Amino acid sequence: LPSKLPYVGTTIFTVMSKLASDEGAYNLSQGFPSFDCSPKLTELVNHYVKNGYNQYAPMSGVPAFRESLAEKTSQVYGIDYDPEAEVTITSGATEAIFCAVTAVVYPGDEVIVLEPAYDSYVPAIDLNGGIPIYVALEAPDFKIDWDAVKAKITDKTKAIMINTPHNPVGTVFSKADLDSLANLVENTDIYIISDEVYEHIVFDGEIHHSMMTHPVLQERTFVCGSVGKTYHTTGWKIGYCLAPKALSREFRRIHQYITFSTVTPMQYALADFLKLPEHYLHLGEFYQKKRDRFNEALKSSRFTFSPSKGSFFQVVSYRNITEEYDYDLAIRLTRESKVASVPVSVFYKDKKDDKLLRFCFAKDDDILDKAGEILSKL
Amino acid sequence: LPSKLPYVGTTIFTVMSKLASDEGAYNLSQGFPSFDCSPKLTELVNHYVKNGYNQYAPMSGVPAFRESLAEKTSQVYGIDYDPEAEVTITSGATEAIFCAVTAVVYPGDEVIVLEPAYDSYVPAIDLNGGIPIYVALEAPDFKIDWDAVKAKITDKTKAIMINTPHNPVGTVFSKADLDSLANLVENTDIYIISDEVYEHIVFDGEIHHSMMTHPVLQERTFVCGSVGKTYHTTGWKIGYCLAPKALSREFRRIHQYITFSTVTPMQYALADFLKLPEHYLHLGEFYQKKRDRFNEALKSSRFTFSPSKGSFFQVVSYRNITEEYDYDLAIRLTRESKVASVPVSVFYKDKKDDKLLRFCFAKDDDILDKAGEILSKL
Ligand SMILES: CSCCC(=O)C(=O)O
Ligand SMILES: CSCCC(=O)C(=O)O
Repeated sequence: LPSKLPYVGTTIFTVMSKLASDEGAYNLSQGFPSFDCSPKLTELVNHYVKNGYNQYAPMSGVPAFRESLAEKTSQVYGIDYDPEAEVTITSGATEAIFCAVTAVVYPGDEVIVLEPAYDSYVPAIDLNGGIPIYVALEAPDFKIDWDAVKAKITDKTKAIMINTPHNPVGTVFSKADLDSLANLVENTDIYIISDEVYEHIVFDGEIHHSMMTHPVLQERTFVCGSVGKTYHTTGWKIGYCLAPKALSREFRRIHQYITFSTVTPMQYALADFLKLPEHYLHLGEFYQKKRDRFNEALKSSRFTFSPSKGSFFQVVSYRNITEEYDYDLAIRLTRESKVASVPVSVFYKDKKDDKLLRFCFAKDDDILDKAGEILSKL
Repeated sequence: LPSKLPYVGTTIFTVMSKLASDEGAYNLSQGFPSFDCSPKLTELVNHYVKNGYNQYAPMSGVPAFRESLAEKTSQVYGIDYDPEAEVTITSGATEAIFCAVTAVVYPGDEVIVLEPAYDSYVPAIDLNGGIPIYVALEAPDFKIDWDAVKAKITDKTKAIMINTPHNPVGTVFSKADLDSLANLVENTDIYIISDEVYEHIVFDGEIHHSMMTHPVLQERTFVCGSVGKTYHTTGWKIGYCLAPKALSREFRRIHQYITFSTVTPMQYALADFLKLPEHYLHLGEFYQKKRDRFNEALKSSRFTFSPSKGSFFQVVSYRNITEEYDYDLAIRLTRESKVASVPVSVFYKDKKDDKLLRFCFAKDDDILDKAGEILSKL
């Protein structure tokens, strides 16, 4: 059986989470919280499950949930999406990204990918016959070199994949980044597929500049978001896509035949819960404390790093400690030191090894403290 | 914005369910029960939601659920799939079908589709650059003409889409159908993608002959199943794919980048609930009573039909009543007579109109009675 994705082995997230559990290690690898979502939210789900909200949601999502999401988006960013035609609920942001890529990428089209990149972008492009065109974000600061991006744009460029706040490296777009991107794509037919799942997790007074806040970008962007990352419910697999009407129309034509619709009772629960802004308003603060707590321990270690500006990931360099391949080191640290991480090479198509590990700090404080203590002694 | 699926408008299921609700009509259109799932099952979900099972499931599904499903499959069909490597949980059978098609269909490959066909097969083939090759199931009995299928097989044939029990026409494969299919594909590289979501809904002593029960077919088949159709939980969007190791491996490589994983707490609940066979053992009986109740009313109508042998759909011919286009009639019946159905032309790529309507009888008895009374008087 030949493979369309011959380079794909078992996902690192499965490998590391399983190893962590087999080894009894602190699991700072896969990006999910070790703590639970709000009991208010689980009570809402239980209410809807118990009261018969167990059949198909509409293809584009439960109307009340789409309305809550549009309302929240309007409050946070001042941008209005029509819940009827421009908001689509998906089975996770992964599905949203896949549908957006599928909607616009045809065989032979080029799609610009800034590496390191979340591991679903390139397979989504490949499955549509697109050609990923790579631009490197260079350590240590991983800033985007917009001239390098510009140099890769051709008349075959169909889309640019954007991710801010960035997984794995924790950078966030500045207003100037948006302007640079807008300059590149203005008066072209290039689409933007923007993964903004960590939108509410930014630190140190940073602001999340969504692509939707720039008019030149908004009109051509599929903004892909996640309920899981904001509400500590990664296992509900609820994401969404916000995009202008014409883009949403194509998006839905794809979504309709990929999953058709998304789990119903959770959508009703979220329709109610999204009306309470206190949760996401304090999410940056909440995670900043965790970042600081974890980084404090790392400071007395031999790792070097710049503090993450957003997302719930901290990338560190171990160049001072060992020359091992990052994948081998991540496995060894899990086995021997009982702390699981993700090697950053997995976010590169060619598995480029910059001697970096990614730690997820969406974990209970005692886990962060114990893992930090171990890491500080390496 | 050009479209990869230019022929796709708003899905008939959305159109009719919305029209039914706007018009206060009895909704016998979209295939979902008007009644709820077992309270035992909702209690299990609530237990897991309340107890913190709200983060990512493993990519291939919650192990306990995969084990329950493999165990149930072994009990029902006597076929053993390895839960570790051959059972994959998906976000609905729609995702399972899409992933199976994507795993094997390359641009230019031909895929045989028996029409009428569920509306997601052809878009899945098209999105992968495949070429649907149609074979008609001819009214009134919709039997498969295997010689006609054989005549369409070429050296480009990559797969055959199978659906038994059949949506919309309610036929079921006989043992002879399996043998005929096996004769066609033996010693070829043709894959089978088998939609068996109505596996437990068969009537009048019929047996569901799963593709897995024939060794020549089993080794090349992706069996796609649905929890929603069996447990009255269409809104949970949980499906699965059973396939030999090499096929499952490719299937998972695709699934990993389409949705990654499926809603967690429902999987844990189902892991427990699948151990209770009483539910699915009586499902055929349960739906046969509904079919009979509905058909009893239709007998005094001017519609003609052969009773459905499986699925929860009854197709009827209205040739005796009117020459209207089936789509127009379905809309008009919903508006004027307050009974919503699905026109069978939507299951044909060219919208072939055989003067047939599909009614879903997965509805409470009083709905069936009232709809039946209206229809009997047309
Ligand atoms: C979909 S599993 C991976 C979770 C995640 O976003 C990450 O760890 O990067
Ligand atoms: C996925 S919505 C359609 C439900 C269904 O299977 C049908 O009505 O045929």
